Amino acid sequence: MEEHLSDAVSELRQAIGEVNVIDAAAEIARRTRDISLWNRRGAAVVYPGSAQEVARVMQIASRHRLAVWPFSMGKNWGYGATMPYRDGALIMVLERLNRIIEVNQELAYAVIEPGVTQKQLNDHLKSANIPLWVDCTDSTPQGSIIGNALERGVGYTRYWDHFGHLCGLEVVLAGGEIIRTGGGPANSLTWNTYKWGTGPYIDGLFSQANFGIVTKAGIWLMPEPQAFNCFICELHDETRLSPLVDALRRLALDGILPANVHIVSDLLFTAQIMPYPYNLLEGGTYLSADARSKLRDRLRIAPWTVTGGLYGTRVQVRAMRRAVSAALRAFGNVRFIDDRKLRFLDRMTAIWNRTRNFPLLPDLFARLSNSSLEKAQAIPHVYPILKGIPGEYIVRFAYFKSRGPRPVSDVDPARDGAGMLWVAALSPLTGKHTGRLLELCEPIFHKHGFDLSLAFLMVNARSVMALMQIFFDKENAAEGQRALALYDEVIHATAKAGFPQYRTSVAFSDRIMEEAPELQRTLDAMRRAIDPYNLIAPGRYGVGLNNENSGIR
Amino acid sequence: MEEHLSDAVSELRQAIGEVNVIDAAAEIARRTRDISLWNRRGAAVVYPGSAQEVARVMQIASRHRLAVWPFSMGKNWGYGATMPYRDGALIMVLERLNRIIEVNQELAYAVIEPGVTQKQLNDHLKSANIPLWVDCTDSTPQGSIIGNALERGVGYTRYWDHFGHLCGLEVVLAGGEIIRTGGGPANSLTWNTYKWGTGPYIDGLFSQANFGIVTKAGIWLMPEPQAFNCFICELHDETRLSPLVDALRRLALDGILPANVHIVSDLLFTAQIMPYPYNLLEGGTYLSADARSKLRDRLRIAPWTVTGGLYGTRVQVRAMRRAVSAALRAFGNVRFIDDRKLRFLDRMTAIWNRTRNFPLLPDLFARLSNSSLEKAQAIPHVYPILKGIPGEYIVRFAYFKSRGPRPVSDVDPARDGAGMLWVAALSPLTGKHTGRLLELCEPIFHKHGFDLSLAFLMVNARSVMALMQIFFDKENAAEGQRALALYDEVIHATAKAGFPQYRTSVAFSDRIMEEAPELQRTLDAMRRAIDPYNLIAPGRYGVGLNNENSGIR
Repeated sequence: MEEHLSDAVSELRQAIGEVNVIDAAAEIARRTRDISLWNRRGAAVVYPGSAQEVARVMQIASRHRLAVWPFSMGKNWGYGATMPYRDGALIMVLERLNRIIEVNQELAYAVIEPGVTQKQLNDHLKSANIPLWVDCTDSTPQGSIIGNALERGVGYTRYWDHFGHLCGLEVVLAGGEIIRTGGGPANSLTWNTYKWGTGPYIDGLFSQANFGIVTKAGIWLMPEPQAFNCFICELHDETRLSPLVDALRRLALDGILPANVHIVSDLLFTAQIMPYPYNLLEGGTYLSADARSKLRDRLRIAPWTVTGGLYGTRVQVRAMRRAVSAALRAFGNVRFIDDRKLRFLDRMTAIWNRTRNFPLLPDLFARLSNSSLEKAQAIPHVYPILKGIPGEYIVRFAYFKSRGPRPVSDVDPARDGAGMLWVAALSPLTGKHTGRLLELCEPIFHKHGFDLSLAFLMVNARSVMALMQIFFDKENAAEGQRALALYDEVIHATAKAGFPQYRTSVAFSDRIMEEAPELQRTLDAMRRAIDPYNLIAPGRYGVGLNNENSGIR
Repeated sequence: MEEHLSDAVSELRQAIGEVNVIDAAAEIARRTRDISLWNRRGAAVVYPGSAQEVARVMQIASRHRLAVWPFSMGKNWGYGATMPYRDGALIMVLERLNRIIEVNQELAYAVIEPGVTQKQLNDHLKSANIPLWVDCTDSTPQGSIIGNALERGVGYTRYWDHFGHLCGLEVVLAGGEIIRTGGGPANSLTWNTYKWGTGPYIDGLFSQANFGIVTKAGIWLMPEPQAFNCFICELHDETRLSPLVDALRRLALDGILPANVHIVSDLLFTAQIMPYPYNLLEGGTYLSADARSKLRDRLRIAPWTVTGGLYGTRVQVRAMRRAVSAALRAFGNVRFIDDRKLRFLDRMTAIWNRTRNFPLLPDLFARLSNSSLEKAQAIPHVYPILKGIPGEYIVRFAYFKSRGPRPVSDVDPARDGAGMLWVAALSPLTGKHTGRLLELCEPIFHKHGFDLSLAFLMVNARSVMALMQIFFDKENAAEGQRALALYDEVIHATAKAGFPQYRTSVAFSDRIMEEAPELQRTLDAMRRAIDPYNLIAPGRYGVGLNNENSGIR
């Protein structure tokens, strides 16, 4: 294998340039780390610069039967980042494919490459004065738009469903062929405007899967609305979460909330604004109900905080505000924030900040605003994300249990040794189901010595994702072991109860298809037909797991 | 082949029952006719009654290497109805799979079989008093919901994108295996609420294609809105169509019109309300501009009529009305119709109808209402369709050139010998593009001696489908020949100019993938892996066209 590999590396260097093929072990490790606890070693890291170079890499990989794991930017933190399912594969990072090929203002779409980041496209739109928004996640601005969409990431605006807003893909197949999805004539005028194309719609084969490497995609952009409001509702009575979920479903089904609503637990909110309150542990490994309640009081945050965006004409947004207020005021005070109010809040928190050293004043502010300074300071960071402007603030929650400092800029929890795993379970959007899910998960988290921290993110009007965080201190090996045991148990328990995974990690790939063996066989057969040596990300989401020549060792 | 077939027929009869396998030539012909001019002969017609029976049919077909063309209800009139791409296949009609398996009122979806018709599900919802609407097409109430969705048909309401609202499929593969799309645990709670599932999204392989036979599907239903309005805007100045299209795009992109808008040409509107005005032909085979203008004056219809639905809370619909008025009033008078107004119109046209034999009165009505009786009578038929209630009225336009009578009920243009072909071209939703498309197509229609009749149907905020009708008299063989020549030329000309087909017919299957050979090879390879004998609808939308054992002769 080693010799085999060194031949391949030489050929790759010839094909795409010396500096774009990294095979020094330390460098590979540096470039493929995650905040998770899994360890997978790539054989080398390659950085092709174009679809043609991606094709050339695949041709070389085919000759050497070398598995290739493609990643756009590799910021899939907490799910495995740039790790392959098994050691020994080529890691392909597409960060050099970073061209914004077209922005069509009239038809509100862009055509981009997988190395284009959230920040890059947003900056481009802003600097060119194009009144279109690109929906972003609350993770790093350096994340890939296409990579996130193919992983079916979600954002905040009307265009929150990132995969749903891809339109027209260019894909490199295992043998190096380049295809364009959508069918139709070669000069199709609707490649980036009509998603289903002509004939079978196959884009889904490249999402949470491995049928090919996407090297270009159309993405729909949202016209800047005339009016925008962010709403916040705090649920102080935990027992009323279920009816709140039902109220949100009705708003969404009625088309009043055509955007994504997040229901954030107190602990996830805490993680966004401060390091883990180790001092409240009282000898345990997770916070008691009492300690958690004290923490909430100090920060003046509720057990659950609901946030969402309202987008439309001024008249529409006014109508939405009225409907949202009517539906949610029974659960808690509903506050609306617009640009003007945000500027005011900004000024207030700046003044408040300056009162830190004066007696009584900070406390007065807190009482008047029913907020803490920490909480008040979060809003100006969250608000822009709801307008498609990515920021580094929220993703800092990944540092929750880190003992070291939490950076203000250039945030990179993988580099900085932060520890967190995601478990994302899908549920029907009913209070009955979300209640059942919480009842199921909380004891499991506690059993393994962890706080249950999560957010419910609506993924459409009928479904919600329970995005759970397992926070751990990477320097605490025992905690790490417990985290992995918890991960395993909670994934199995939720699946057994009928809650599927919304998205999964490199560590669960071998089990994700466990209960759909006929489907897996069908996918494997189709994949074998176009990737006979099982080269592209073999085993990703369970696909190709059982195929031969797989590089799965 | 004949002996081979008779063996297969005996086995099929044993498997699914004598009466469910038809092989008498006259009966086959009766059950597989279309309004088009194409002729394809099936070998036999089979009617399985369950997914298990579909699987058994496939097992028998596999043994005999017999191609099987599945159809839900077979009402795909004008695209080939129940015709296979080539003679000699088994025609499989799924009308006996007609169970409504579940209606989930809380989460607003149903799980149905492919034989469930638009009328059946709507009747079920209404009779059970379930306040959910199922979006319908304006074709026959006897059409299959699943069949139309898999063909990517469109309707009128917020849920107009029928394929986009399928969620969770059960599929029988060529070898008789039954799979369920969506992955996840076997008892998944989100099978019918979360479309993308876990792992690759593969539902698109069963849409406008032939990777399997869908035997069950989840379909999202629209909660009955608090308020509904239909709007109508007549464009009298033909030269202003392009800016009107641009205005509609802006409304849709801004999220003001989250529903499907139809822009109907004078001639298609005419076809809905009366037989072809042969008397105006003046010796030609299509209407002169002058004759067409006279026809419009008599019927008081505009060159283009724009209709759409507004759905939401009362406040929302009021806001939509204001925005639609503001955007469209420069093009023509915008009228809004709600249930109350409809009842009034109904009463008025009833009275008007009774004045037919009185002097002057009908004319007075026409002048007062700026309408004709024919036109006024259409509205009460169109209006319910925008509320998801299917009707037989509109599809009668297929009888436009028929010399015989046009039925009022039990409408079946295929049975009655009506003649029409569809050409459906996709275009970006800009006035520039729709203008170019009209300029391209009109001379071709005229060259072959046909009127250009069409509707522009918005298929999303960025794309529109030009749905063109080639009306002909089936008893006029020369006109039939011209119709086919026109069909060929207009499809090629539009494709060459970059306008893809939104949906195509049995007659164009061999050319639809012409310009996407790499994509076709990829699809063929994947299909070969799960349908090695090329049995299911071989050649449909060009897929499997080049595979072996294809039954394509």
